[in-house]
Amino acid sequence: MDEIGVRRPPTALLALARAALQEDVGRGDITSLVTVTEEAGARARFVAREELVVSGLEAARAVFYEAGGEEISFAALAGEGERLAAGSVLAEVEGPARPSLAAERVALNLLMRLSGIATLTSRYVEAVEGTGARISDTRKTTPGLRLLEKAAVKAGGGANHRAGLDDGVLIKDNHLALAGGVTEAVRRARENSPHLLKIEVEVESLGMLEEAIEAGADAVLLDNMTLEEVGEAVGLVRKEAPGLLVEVSGGINLRTVRSYAEAGPDLVSVGALTHSAPAADVSLEVEPC
Amino acid sequence: MDEIGVRRPPTALLALARAALQEDVGRGDITSLVTVTEEAGARARFVAREELVVSGLEAARAVFYEAGGEEISFAALAGEGERLAAGSVLAEVEGPARPSLAAERVALNLLMRLSGIATLTSRYVEAVEGTGARISDTRKTTPGLRLLEKAAVKAGGGANHRAGLDDGVLIKDNHLALAGGVTEAVRRARENSPHLLKIEVEVESLGMLEEAIEAGADAVLLDNMTLEEVGEAVGLVRKEAPGLLVEVSGGINLRTVRSYAEAGPDLVSVGALTHSAPAADVSLEVEPC
Amino acid sequence: MDEIGVRRPPTALLALARAALQEDVGRGDITSLVTVTEEAGARARFVAREELVVSGLEAARAVFYEAGGEEISFAALAGEGERLAAGSVLAEVEGPARPSLAAERVALNLLMRLSGIATLTSRYVEAVEGTGARISDTRKTTPGLRLLEKAAVKAGGGANHRAGLDDGVLIKDNHLALAGGVTEAVRRARENSPHLLKIEVEVESLGMLEEAIEAGADAVLLDNMTLEEVGEAVGLVRKEAPGLLVEVSGGINLRTVRSYAEAGPDLVSVGALTHSAPAADVSLEVEPC
Amino acid sequence: MDEIGVRRPPTALLALARAALQEDVGRGDITSLVTVTEEAGARARFVAREELVVSGLEAARAVFYEAGGEEISFAALAGEGERLAAGSVLAEVEGPARPSLAAERVALNLLMRLSGIATLTSRYVEAVEGTGARISDTRKTTPGLRLLEKAAVKAGGGANHRAGLDDGVLIKDNHLALAGGVTEAVRRARENSPHLLKIEVEVESLGMLEEAIEAGADAVLLDNMTLEEVGEAVGLVRKEAPGLLVEVSGGINLRTVRSYAEAGPDLVSVGALTHSAPAADVSLEVEPC
Amino acid sequence: MDEIGVRRPPTALLALARAALQEDVGRGDITSLVTVTEEAGARARFVAREELVVSGLEAARAVFYEAGGEEISFAALAGEGERLAAGSVLAEVEGPARPSLAAERVALNLLMRLSGIATLTSRYVEAVEGTGARISDTRKTTPGLRLLEKAAVKAGGGANHRAGLDDGVLIKDNHLALAGGVTEAVRRARENSPHLLKIEVEVESLGMLEEAIEAGADAVLLDNMTLEEVGEAVGLVRKEAPGLLVEVSGGINLRTVRSYAEAGPDLVSVGALTHSAPAADVSLEVEPC
Amino acid sequence: MDEIGVRRPPTALLALARAALQEDVGRGDITSLVTVTEEAGARARFVAREELVVSGLEAARAVFYEAGGEEISFAALAGEGERLAAGSVLAEVEGPARPSLAAERVALNLLMRLSGIATLTSRYVEAVEGTGARISDTRKTTPGLRLLEKAAVKAGGGANHRAGLDDGVLIKDNHLALAGGVTEAVRRARENSPHLLKIEVEVESLGMLEEAIEAGADAVLLDNMTLEEVGEAVGLVRKEAPGLLVEVSGGINLRTVRSYAEAGPDLVSVGALTHSAPAADVSLEVEPC
Repeated sequence: MDEIGVRRPPTALLALARAALQEDVGRGDITSLVTVTEEAGARARFVAREELVVSGLEAARAVFYEAGGEEISFAALAGEGERLAAGSVLAEVEGPARPSLAAERVALNLLMRLSGIATLTSRYVEAVEGTGARISDTRKTTPGLRLLEKAAVKAGGGANHRAGLDDGVLIKDNHLALAGGVTEAVRRARENSPHLLKIEVEVESLGMLEEAIEAGADAVLLDNMTLEEVGEAVGLVRKEAPGLLVEVSGGINLRTVRSYAEAGPDLVSVGALTHSAPAADVSLEVEPC
Repeated sequence: MDEIGVRRPPTALLALARAALQEDVGRGDITSLVTVTEEAGARARFVAREELVVSGLEAARAVFYEAGGEEISFAALAGEGERLAAGSVLAEVEGPARPSLAAERVALNLLMRLSGIATLTSRYVEAVEGTGARISDTRKTTPGLRLLEKAAVKAGGGANHRAGLDDGVLIKDNHLALAGGVTEAVRRARENSPHLLKIEVEVESLGMLEEAIEAGADAVLLDNMTLEEVGEAVGLVRKEAPGLLVEVSGGINLRTVRSYAEAGPDLVSVGALTHSAPAADVSLEVEPC
Repeated sequence: MDEIGVRRPPTALLALARAALQEDVGRGDITSLVTVTEEAGARARFVAREELVVSGLEAARAVFYEAGGEEISFAALAGEGERLAAGSVLAEVEGPARPSLAAERVALNLLMRLSGIATLTSRYVEAVEGTGARISDTRKTTPGLRLLEKAAVKAGGGANHRAGLDDGVLIKDNHLALAGGVTEAVRRARENSPHLLKIEVEVESLGMLEEAIEAGADAVLLDNMTLEEVGEAVGLVRKEAPGLLVEVSGGINLRTVRSYAEAGPDLVSVGALTHSAPAADVSLEVEPC
Repeated sequence: MDEIGVRRPPTALLALARAALQEDVGRGDITSLVTVTEEAGARARFVAREELVVSGLEAARAVFYEAGGEEISFAALAGEGERLAAGSVLAEVEGPARPSLAAERVALNLLMRLSGIATLTSRYVEAVEGTGARISDTRKTTPGLRLLEKAAVKAGGGANHRAGLDDGVLIKDNHLALAGGVTEAVRRARENSPHLLKIEVEVESLGMLEEAIEAGADAVLLDNMTLEEVGEAVGLVRKEAPGLLVEVSGGINLRTVRSYAEAGPDLVSVGALTHSAPAADVSLEVEPC
Repeated sequence: MDEIGVRRPPTALLALARAALQEDVGRGDITSLVTVTEEAGARARFVAREELVVSGLEAARAVFYEAGGEEISFAALAGEGERLAAGSVLAEVEGPARPSLAAERVALNLLMRLSGIATLTSRYVEAVEGTGARISDTRKTTPGLRLLEKAAVKAGGGANHRAGLDDGVLIKDNHLALAGGVTEAVRRARENSPHLLKIEVEVESLGMLEEAIEAGADAVLLDNMTLEEVGEAVGLVRKEAPGLLVEVSGGINLRTVRSYAEAGPDLVSVGALTHSAPAADVSLEVEPC
Repeated sequence: MDEIGVRRPPTALLALARAALQEDVGRGDITSLVTVTEEAGARARFVAREELVVSGLEAARAVFYEAGGEEISFAALAGEGERLAAGSVLAEVEGPARPSLAAERVALNLLMRLSGIATLTSRYVEAVEGTGARISDTRKTTPGLRLLEKAAVKAGGGANHRAGLDDGVLIKDNHLALAGGVTEAVRRARENSPHLLKIEVEVESLGMLEEAIEAGADAVLLDNMTLEEVGEAVGLVRKEAPGLLVEVSGGINLRTVRSYAEAGPDLVSVGALTHSAPAADVSLEVEPC
């Protein structure tokens, strides 16, 4: 639990909050300005209206800080990644009514989206429990929210793949087509990339997999393979290149994920974690104080 | 269809594209830099992998323009709001391979999200067809993407509610609690808000509705009422205050929306249009050229 | 009166102050740096050198906060909208001399301009006292200072018209020419604008006024009409469309404003409030401390 | 006359235009969007409604460029600093109607203010014609518009004083109080300021003037002196320190400026040029095309 | 060689150029404004005044583009990484004189610094020729210029280490002290870092090296070891962990670098490449045209 | 010595620190995040590893403040411009380990560069001691760091030349070529530049010097003259134009600077102070706490 009090949130979160508030508030929260007095105070509670895994409370806190500075206190009553039952209180806010009301919608928009991602991720993670495979996100995130959404995946128990195009080499079908095949692409990458980045290759067949192993890839992404192919591919890797990391991806959903995980890969990556998670249902209950 | 060629996209879209690219590309698209030559060209097609309603092509175009300037051409093959069958091509891109590959993911992230919203909206719009009620969005949008998401709702046939807190007075339960009731809140709003803004009041009972009518509200939002209550409320308004706009909201979904629409309101607003629309499935197929 | 002490001003005011200081200070206040020691302190008083209505003290406070942080205290001795006699003290500042001197001119530039607007507005408001008409501003404000100038108009007793092009529909002569007349323009607006925005039409004759009433406009702007025409127009509206708001505008000055107000409109809007108000005369008297 | 065509305005003007448009347009020019079709074109002329001296056409051009890019042409029909009779056309604009209408008010707000300053300055310049004294501006400019307003003063025939606190040393009464007098202040300045900046001292008496001459000031500002004192001071300088620049300032207006100029100073500086110039009356006449 | 003509430089370079120009030009290049007419044109040549390896021409080009837009042409006459003799021409610029003169110093400041880095790097690279070791940069770069300086190292034949703290795990002495030793630190890193990042450990003794090998590090940095120790360490690695990358660092200079390289590491990293390279001597010769 | 505690650094330094941290930290300091616990604290000392003159502690402080806010204390143990022996401690930092480690490299990069400049400057200053000439910097600074580097020159005992192109008129060879000679260029400058800026002319021969004196220049820059020519030039000035400031420049180094200074100029300006100063050797020693 957060101490009851006020700390300045990190600069990057404040910048996000500022842009989001500017987008929503525009030239002013007219309704609050004309119906609520400047002196009025409010106490508000974020309440889960369904079971959920929490993510985004730090972002919500930044929104209130940006809106009202040190005059609004924000107390988190749950931790990042905590699973809450319907009816639980996530956080309490207290301070002047006007900035609190102006910040409400933006804070909820962030909290609901991020908790939605954490909650969906946790379902995938549960689905593969015991298989040894980890659930990973992708770069299919909302523009502007990547780091928050990746943190939400982590809160849900998932692993994070690359944060962007600059912290890992992932050679995909399009690169292969343009580079002239797996062997040449891996050779170029080995020669030119910074020495602390691993090289992963997307393969669509056992033949390509063998070529990737041969070329010295550090990891392979089995893309859109059938379950049988995945099984064979994992077997091949474990036998021929035991240190190689194996990732599976492509159209995997909650019903099929366990089968893929049982085929033995290290990672199963799922775009839907971030591009199609429904918002978690959270409301803000306000009372005068 | 867009002319095949290059126009500079609006400044605001370019700024969004720039921030999104910076978030994804970071210090450089290393994989493309090390595997693809500077001279390589690419031709790519955005292909719908399921039936969808298009939105976001202008945003996708801005991403490619920001990444590659006038050297990348972007030809839209479908219009905003057009319904496409699975397999249809939304747009074609052609230019140097490196910036095209660097822009791919960001463009897809925008296009899939916005087309997802347009597609979901169109389902709600179809569901209420013939009832006279319009489907409206809310302020439950993604921080940073409000105007694009509201345009996607429009592309799907929906209506736009307030763009922010400054272009309409909407007195909600929290304002009522702090202002001391409907009558006083409407009076204050009438006295202090700019004269071109209408005043809408959220009501939860027939009693509050009558008070809102009496106070001279311009519109009412029936929040979380049962179907029966909505019916009665609409009847009351049509009789006593024929010019009053009636909006219904609260936990309405695709199965229930028609019943609410048939109860006679002017607008049914649905938060899920923007906060829980699954991404539309679109892929980018690249070939050397 | 403000508490003697230091609060962080709103982010938007600080951003304005920062830009203004950067414009004036550039790479440093050389004169103060070379003639005043780092340890020197200063106490300064803003003094009205003529009768004025105060506006802009919050902006002035932000300038000193931005220049000197919490080391400079700023105590407002008058309230926004208060009328002061010549010789009155508006505020007192105390802190390190160097940043105080660097901030002086920018703070005065804001305070003098905004108090000038409030003072001029108050003259118009007095001129129409008792007529029932309100004095309103326009969008003829200084680029970059709109919200502050509109607050100054309010401080002077005036009403605020639209804050921008997005919080109201105001169909002017140019739109009418392009849309093909009042009836068609209002019809299009009714169909496409967000439902919480009212529709105002600028009319130049009784014929256009009747067309606007017929078309269902929510408000009309009588532009550049003679006194007689305004009288007739108001009569027509009160009889045929009692709920319709009537605004008068066009070349109205302090000598003529009362006659127009007596003709019965709801609002008289005056561009000169913001585009031609002479600065109020305020000086800053500094002493070592 | 400007060539009829389109050049990209300087970056700084575009940034100003962008901020000003964002302030005015907000989330969109709704009226134009809902009443004017996307295809409609417009031709518009800026017309002087009173005699004026032109300034600000480059700024106006930047506003249209920022709003509509290369699709809007802007042809200046008058030059910076040109005097025009009422009824003259300053510039013509042609392009798509929507962005042209959205840009109209911002362009006018800049053009009217800047031409107002140029026009007022020209009156002061005419008033002192033949005396050998130049009219100079001050730092009493609008926050955000300094460089444009100083250019307007130049357009009106005036001279520019310091652009900010960093391009000249001007020791004022407040610095003297804190530094302990003229001699010490000039000594400190001489020792510590960059060698290409001159040192000017504000003096309020002949005694201070003698001290400033003795101390080796490069220029003196005679502040709030009577006409007689100014005459004596100028005489003293011409005799004892012929290279010294003499500036006069303080409550000088159009009626008194010639007398001060005839007393022989090099410069008469007038704050009102920028802080109290009424806007020049310019209108934009639009027609479909 | 660059085509003679004008292309828009990448956004990031333009932003750097804009900030640098703003820093240098401030409110205007007064000297050029007052001594050179607006119509004057200039042709200028960047000339090497000593032997050097070229880097930074793209940055110089961006400066001229930012200053003068498409009116200034910039033709590179040498390629990034090319070695030029004293007297060679690097590039030619032609366009309006005023913006060309305003851009001169900033362009030279970038070009001289970056070519200085490339030139110094090339000396280190030559010094180790044939040893199999590569020369690498560090994060000891100039704030704001990292990517350009790393490109300059590459132009000089060197390799790039991490671009920042997020694209590689490098566990240094400070991390070890806080984590409680090599084994625990590597274990934590293995468990928590994204799977495409390698893990490098800084070791100061053979004991630590053995621990790092045992813990499964992907690379080791031998810091401040003597030549003998480096030799032993390399031997140990080649025998026990053949795939492990070995980097040497710490107080290595041009006289000592070959000995270290001959001891057999994969990389020798040198902070001085970027923190202490003297500027290459380049001048800009201008003539009217 | 700085008080042990925390003050908010100036806005401009914080902005610089923020940009520098963003460049280095990117999406996060992964190594610290994965190896060091959130609770861990650290105490660190900046230690001089060679004799140096201190500059940049305020900048280093801003980096830690930006990274860790008020939770990191920074105590300067030396003053700007102080000369320290090898082994001395410049400053102590204490706070949470993670942000402290993330800030380390950026703070060192600034401190080492700026102290390097101060140290080199102090050598030049010592070299000319007793000659009456001052050592001055130029505009050959690092883009983005001009004000800090000029402060470092001052810390080393040097004088600051123009801060940019707007705070002094310096007519160089290129301006002369374009303006048609010294006489015409000075005449134009005299007529058009703000009255508080002096006019300096770069001359390459005694003939040009005489022309500059005749034309009424305030200062001359003797560029690339031989020692004999400088001597003659100074003699000429002292005789014919005693108030004229004389600056010498061009290829002067530590071995030759004293001879030039003894020839009698007021200033000797040296580009190498800022473009080629090697970094001062400073390390940060961290321990858990």
